[in-house]
Amino acid sequence: MAERALEALIDALRRLPGVGVKSAQRMAWHLLQHDRAGALRLAAALSDAVQRMRHCTRCHTFTEAEVCATCLDPRRDARLLAVVETPADQAALERSGGYSGMYFVLMGRISPLDGIGVAEVGIERLLERAADGLVEEVILATSFGAEGEVTAQALAQALRARGLKVTRLARGVPAGSELEYVDLSTIAYALVDRR
Amino acid sequence: MAERALEALIDALRRLPGVGVKSAQRMAWHLLQHDRAGALRLAAALSDAVQRMRHCTRCHTFTEAEVCATCLDPRRDARLLAVVETPADQAALERSGGYSGMYFVLMGRISPLDGIGVAEVGIERLLERAADGLVEEVILATSFGAEGEVTAQALAQALRARGLKVTRLARGVPAGSELEYVDLSTIAYALVDRR
Repeated sequence: MAERALEALIDALRRLPGVGVKSAQRMAWHLLQHDRAGALRLAAALSDAVQRMRHCTRCHTFTEAEVCATCLDPRRDARLLAVVETPADQAALERSGGYSGMYFVLMGRISPLDGIGVAEVGIERLLERAADGLVEEVILATSFGAEGEVTAQALAQALRARGLKVTRLARGVPAGSELEYVDLSTIAYALVDRR
Repeated sequence: MAERALEALIDALRRLPGVGVKSAQRMAWHLLQHDRAGALRLAAALSDAVQRMRHCTRCHTFTEAEVCATCLDPRRDARLLAVVETPADQAALERSGGYSGMYFVLMGRISPLDGIGVAEVGIERLLERAADGLVEEVILATSFGAEGEVTAQALAQALRARGLKVTRLARGVPAGSELEYVDLSTIAYALVDRR
């Protein structure tokens, strides 16, 4: 076989999430045919990221430093700790402009089918972080699908057992929505959680 | 910013075809969180492929050698030259078991919207290859969408001008199909091309 290097590249690309054989082939051919500079840039970026990126020792998000910039920011309210699943969820909360507390990033959520239980999602690390003597309220901001809800429930139980105040982001009708077009389970939740 | 290496990785992944910001983020997080070995393997495979893979000087497909194994195979019929768009199309023809001639791989097709004209698709290289004195018939096996048809027409014109016999894969009803479920333009073509 005089295409061993190509096969190896296609195999390696297939390990990316959401990439099947056809996509991996298309990516490999595209890089070799039209963007060899991009391929080398990607190779360097991969090595560099693996070498530099680690987890913030306080909030567990990705960072190159020991502690990330958000955790070091003295203007943030150390009494509030929001638990999110991913850096993207953290960014969404930041963009909302409604939160100025600290974060804890799970980097996942409980997913029994994938073998990710309460231990794998880093509950010990969270309990330790929340017990710093400053945190007064842990806001569970995991997603609102089945796995996110299970994660929130498991974390709430463990956090409350340590005597911590635990809240959950409100479920309800999205801002700006016409009720007519909101799905029924959201309306049902909004009725239950009415204020 | 203590996430420069992460941002650089997301940017580099976005250059892959079909990958947007969200997918690139998901890929980067997945690699850093769950598959750092896979990330390093991908980095090595990229460098290796860029360094080793070049184009066969006869058929233009990807190969690590000067001339690919198919072009060197003495059992293949040198009088037939099939023109395909990609190595995947070549593989499909091979799997059909109905072809034992040579190949020319365009590595693309004419696509005016992407700035790929008849020159970019390598027509000079094809004309030179087809003029080796052995080729008696060029079989155009480009795809049957608009761009593939335009490509086939442009190549046919240039090849016929050099006095070469040019044929095109037959359009028609797929083997095993119920006519009832075949789309109408396919039936129309099958009527026109009836034997």
